[in-house]
Amino acid sequence: MFDCTFQLQQADVVVTGSIKPEEIPVSWIKPQTTVVNCSHGFLSGNLGFGEHRLKNSAQAPNEAVGPLAIALRMQNIVKNSVQWLQAQQYRNWNLRCLKLQPQTPVPSDIEISRGQSPKAIDVLAKEIGLHADEIEIYGQTKAKVRLSLLERLKDQPDGKYVLVAGITPTPLGEGKSTVAVGLVQALTAHLKVNSFACLRQPSQGPTFGVKGGAAGGGYAQVIPMEEFNLHLTGDIHAITAANNLLAAAIDARILHENTQSDKALYNRLVPLVNGVREFSAIQLARLKRLGINKSDPSSLTAEEISKFVRLDIEPSTITWQRVVDTNDRYLRKITIGQASTEKGFSRQAQFDIAVASEIMAVLALTSSLADMKERLGRMVVANDKNGQPVTAEDLGVTGALAVLMKDAIKPTLMQTLEGTPVFVHAGPFANIAHGNSSVLADKIALKLVGKDGFVVTEAGFGADIGMEKFFNIKCRASGLVPSVVVLVATVRALKMHGGGPNVSFCAFLVKQMINTCNNLQLVSDGCCNLQKQIQIAQLFGIPVVVVLNVFKTDSPAEIDLVCTIAKQSGAFDAVPCSHWSAGGKGAVDLSHAVRKAANQQNNFRYLYELELPIVDKIRTIAQKVYGAQDVELSPGALSQIGRYSHQGFDKLPICMAKTHLSLSHQPERKGVPTGFILPISDVRASIGAGFIYPLVGTMSTMPGLPTRPCFYDIDLDPDTEQVKGLF
Amino acid sequence: MFDCTFQLQQADVVVTGSIKPEEIPVSWIKPQTTVVNCSHGFLSGNLGFGEHRLKNSAQAPNEAVGPLAIALRMQNIVKNSVQWLQAQQYRNWNLRCLKLQPQTPVPSDIEISRGQSPKAIDVLAKEIGLHADEIEIYGQTKAKVRLSLLERLKDQPDGKYVLVAGITPTPLGEGKSTVAVGLVQALTAHLKVNSFACLRQPSQGPTFGVKGGAAGGGYAQVIPMEEFNLHLTGDIHAITAANNLLAAAIDARILHENTQSDKALYNRLVPLVNGVREFSAIQLARLKRLGINKSDPSSLTAEEISKFVRLDIEPSTITWQRVVDTNDRYLRKITIGQASTEKGFSRQAQFDIAVASEIMAVLALTSSLADMKERLGRMVVANDKNGQPVTAEDLGVTGALAVLMKDAIKPTLMQTLEGTPVFVHAGPFANIAHGNSSVLADKIALKLVGKDGFVVTEAGFGADIGMEKFFNIKCRASGLVPSVVVLVATVRALKMHGGGPNVSFCAFLVKQMINTCNNLQLVSDGCCNLQKQIQIAQLFGIPVVVVLNVFKTDSPAEIDLVCTIAKQSGAFDAVPCSHWSAGGKGAVDLSHAVRKAANQQNNFRYLYELELPIVDKIRTIAQKVYGAQDVELSPGALSQIGRYSHQGFDKLPICMAKTHLSLSHQPERKGVPTGFILPISDVRASIGAGFIYPLVGTMSTMPGLPTRPCFYDIDLDPDTEQVKGLF
Repeated sequence: MFDCTFQLQQADVVVTGSIKPEEIPVSWIKPQTTVVNCSHGFLSGNLGFGEHRLKNSAQAPNEAVGPLAIALRMQNIVKNSVQWLQAQQYRNWNLRCLKLQPQTPVPSDIEISRGQSPKAIDVLAKEIGLHADEIEIYGQTKAKVRLSLLERLKDQPDGKYVLVAGITPTPLGEGKSTVAVGLVQALTAHLKVNSFACLRQPSQGPTFGVKGGAAGGGYAQVIPMEEFNLHLTGDIHAITAANNLLAAAIDARILHENTQSDKALYNRLVPLVNGVREFSAIQLARLKRLGINKSDPSSLTAEEISKFVRLDIEPSTITWQRVVDTNDRYLRKITIGQASTEKGFSRQAQFDIAVASEIMAVLALTSSLADMKERLGRMVVANDKNGQPVTAEDLGVTGALAVLMKDAIKPTLMQTLEGTPVFVHAGPFANIAHGNSSVLADKIALKLVGKDGFVVTEAGFGADIGMEKFFNIKCRASGLVPSVVVLVATVRALKMHGGGPNVSFCAFLVKQMINTCNNLQLVSDGCCNLQKQIQIAQLFGIPVVVVLNVFKTDSPAEIDLVCTIAKQSGAFDAVPCSHWSAGGKGAVDLSHAVRKAANQQNNFRYLYELELPIVDKIRTIAQKVYGAQDVELSPGALSQIGRYSHQGFDKLPICMAKTHLSLSHQPERKGVPTGFILPISDVRASIGAGFIYPLVGTMSTMPGLPTRPCFYDIDLDPDTEQVKGLF
Repeated sequence: MFDCTFQLQQADVVVTGSIKPEEIPVSWIKPQTTVVNCSHGFLSGNLGFGEHRLKNSAQAPNEAVGPLAIALRMQNIVKNSVQWLQAQQYRNWNLRCLKLQPQTPVPSDIEISRGQSPKAIDVLAKEIGLHADEIEIYGQTKAKVRLSLLERLKDQPDGKYVLVAGITPTPLGEGKSTVAVGLVQALTAHLKVNSFACLRQPSQGPTFGVKGGAAGGGYAQVIPMEEFNLHLTGDIHAITAANNLLAAAIDARILHENTQSDKALYNRLVPLVNGVREFSAIQLARLKRLGINKSDPSSLTAEEISKFVRLDIEPSTITWQRVVDTNDRYLRKITIGQASTEKGFSRQAQFDIAVASEIMAVLALTSSLADMKERLGRMVVANDKNGQPVTAEDLGVTGALAVLMKDAIKPTLMQTLEGTPVFVHAGPFANIAHGNSSVLADKIALKLVGKDGFVVTEAGFGADIGMEKFFNIKCRASGLVPSVVVLVATVRALKMHGGGPNVSFCAFLVKQMINTCNNLQLVSDGCCNLQKQIQIAQLFGIPVVVVLNVFKTDSPAEIDLVCTIAKQSGAFDAVPCSHWSAGGKGAVDLSHAVRKAANQQNNFRYLYELELPIVDKIRTIAQKVYGAQDVELSPGALSQIGRYSHQGFDKLPICMAKTHLSLSHQPERKGVPTGFILPISDVRASIGAGFIYPLVGTMSTMPGLPTRPCFYDIDLDPDTEQVKGLF
């Protein structure tokens, strides 16, 4: 027996592990084992080597071990103990923030981004308590975070969960991402409170089309902004690959079924390899679903073979479209299969932009690798000729899709301009999907910030759409309870709602004109929209902090007026913000207000029960959230609802595909429209993601390139390797 | 003045740098600067601070510097000196190889790959002399290598350059990648000679379609094989994004020109922003090409505006196609632009598989970021209505394409099963493109291995195609001179050439039958193909080592016969190899033969001069390489040649798009066909990549999915995160 305490140099604490004698392999021990004796630290224990072991080893002197091997083994134990200890302890991050020196006028986003030297991402990861083996580094400034973290931290309490939503926006957007980033910069760099921003990954299409970039802006952004806006860690590319493999599988299957007999199909699907014929795992699962409980390929009857080999997809019911991450308007409607090799089985189809893929929504809502695989398999791509749903699993492609998505499921860690942590993960459409970043990123971030910390995430579009979906779809999927809603308003949007002219990309001058005229009446009238959006948040029982994203053209009187009206309308607090021009410092007031609001009583509730019929769920949202008088469903919509109910898909939440430019379905109706009947033209379903999406009007799922796309200004300096022209 | 020597702890050597007094900023110096005195090492020098500087600093006591700052600066100098020193020194790598314990029977590729624990990629990078700031890590097992390395090592002599080519193959392939990997495993893990394998990145399409994987095989492969075969570091995704942005730009431009007046186009292309109208850099370049030497947008005449705003693309001449990295046969021929938003301007088009994109060929042939940008801009996408070429540069998209490709240009470092280094970079088609991995990877590897080391790369298809293009296109682009050709043969392919039945995926049983019958006559007759391919290599003046990739069914007599005939036919040496079942150990004989051959006299020469007319270049290849009697060009081919000559593209090398299954254009003609007339059905051009490609018959650029695709067997274990079913 001997006592032994080891000190792990790298750790702050000294820990002693213990090893049971029976765990020590014989090959470890040699007679001259040295007794090491030291005592340190606040934890201690014994390493006991039984006398009989030492005797044992004397019989096999060649299989011996010295103090070094024992030390290595002990070091391992100590390392595990330290990890365990860290997992149990909440600690305030000791994070080195990056200093800002804001300039006036504010330079372009890319210039600001390039002016800051980001920390090496492994340094940031360590600062926030991630272990080296929990991250996968992609270059100097990005890292994927492994999901194993959730298991390690499962007993850690969650931080506070803050949603940034907005009033009904102008087409220019009112700065929700910027607020989210500014808020965490304020919380962590200025208040020294742990916080994380969880943002959506932008589509690359608009980056080269009309938009130019989406990493926040000014002195509240994610850096390096060109990494954020380009390939990032390849998640959208993985979605594209998975989506298109499934699409190719559908058409190839139809062609093969159309051109082969049952027997030929069977011989190819279950081939004789080295004299043996076997079902693959995914084929056995299909047999089971078909009620054929056989595993020997030679035992199927002709009828069973026919059932097994034919999916009998009805081409006119195919809802699965191909995708590209490019603004390519010529792919909005196409005819495919026109080569002679496809033997005349051509059909009309379309490409969507990659982020419109259901796989993006699956990624955003999934809770684990196993859950993602199940969701991918459940995705319905068409109906068969009997009206039954055909899934990815039926096509045998579930495993391949999961393989293509195995890295995309890990959130990507980046940093803000002030060196605080950000997760970028998933970016589904906000109309045909739910428009929120991933559940997994939020869950991991909530553990990492610890009980006194904050996770700030963002919902697409106005609160009537993005926030409603955040609560009813995302929070329902995750089980997480939000603490505060931050509602973003701008004077320019309020003026529009108060009766001022529309703001748009083409009306740059008009916009400047409105901004420069101090028109309190327009602002006051426009606050009706702000008031309505506050009321919507209150439907869910969550306190609201209104933040006015200040532009240099806003007058003090306008700012005061908005804050006063907001508080009168039920907001917990209302504060102006200047993070765009000042960084986190400009959002310190907001961060104080959010901290106070997070300590309020929380009565979170969903708006509707899943058990309600689909039509009633739609009507509830239309009336309570949008303020519609009623809904009106087209015959097509009603028939789809009937089909989904028949297929057992009626217990899913609803994801309304509606314009974000008005509370109603008519983009030109600003303020708070009333008395309208919301028309539902069609109803579709994302069964893998887990929602039904009614279409209020037509939704474009493929943007186009303008006459002068952004790419005219985008360039790469071959000497410095610097990207120019992203903004 | 004071003398100062610094020791850099991390380095093996002690180096002293010097700093000139005039380089020292005033802000550095303070009066109490400490004199540090020490002497070490084999190099020494002085750091002299002039007296006047010290005086100077006394006048500005606040702008001062202490010993620490000087030490930091000196450390920097020392670091640079160490780097410089390392760059000048050739050294044998001190590389920890991974041990193999080959099993019988040989397990599946994925099982072998998973059974080995790869080294952390940063460890391998350090072992082969890369600095930490020269790599960008992607996860644990992949890293991109920065091109700055080429500058650092520019004075280092190159290693030996070895090409692995093959005889005319069966559709199953004869194992060129496996030989390339086995050879470097032998050289580095067994002979302790520096070596690098440079391989192509496989397309993801076939991985899920018919092929399953392409990382070598058995005990000679790149690990982890699932990383190699899936997204890798995203290069093919980047190519897809760039390719499709250009495609979208073409159609959007045609639509905008068709629906807008000159004035409207001009107002949009050169808009008034904040009261100012300016040309972008790429627009100024276009004006210059048009001969309009103006930079003030208001000074253009109506005629100049019209010339500037209209590319006048003739839709029927568009050669630029969209791509996906999926086997999607339904996209072989499609009609695009059928949505009402495209106003009837629909047209017929196609998708190719991503690796068929000209951008892949550009990536493979480029020598730097600046060169890549130029090549991307030069790519011709169509003709205008006057028959003039329209380029990517004309569309204003060059910079954006370069931005999308900025990371893809860096080769990806991985490792073999024995822990030796591999570059994976670029994978162009071997028919419509040149089928070789990148010039940049080869160049960097040749520097890293040093003068006594070896770089082994591979050419697609048989030597008549891949090797011919390697010499005439790739070596011409790079200026590199190869040392040895390793020509891979198999008994099974030789039997086919000798008159045995065809080997194919469907003829698995036939294959086994041939392999098991010891038929020396068939083998001997089939060696005519081997002899011909040796002679082709000799046309270029390079010594040939024949390697027989041994299968367990090959008899000793067959093996001896092939080696004897090979040597009689002019090969420098001929050896059997068993790396597939034994790892590098099985290729030790080959590695000795290659080392000897590399010391042979080298008379490398190209097959034709670029100055020859296009038709003569085609005829030279057809007659001298394929053994054709003559060529016959279709009227379409002749007219294209006329057009390219007129456009000034006739001085480019030729990239024949021909079947790889025969020396002739008829896949069923095995052995050495003679007396045939090679028909050229069409001639196309990849101007950015830099070659003209005549089509010998139709080439499929989009594979399809079979009835039972590989993905039926591919799965992901959600608990272990392990990929199953890749083979």
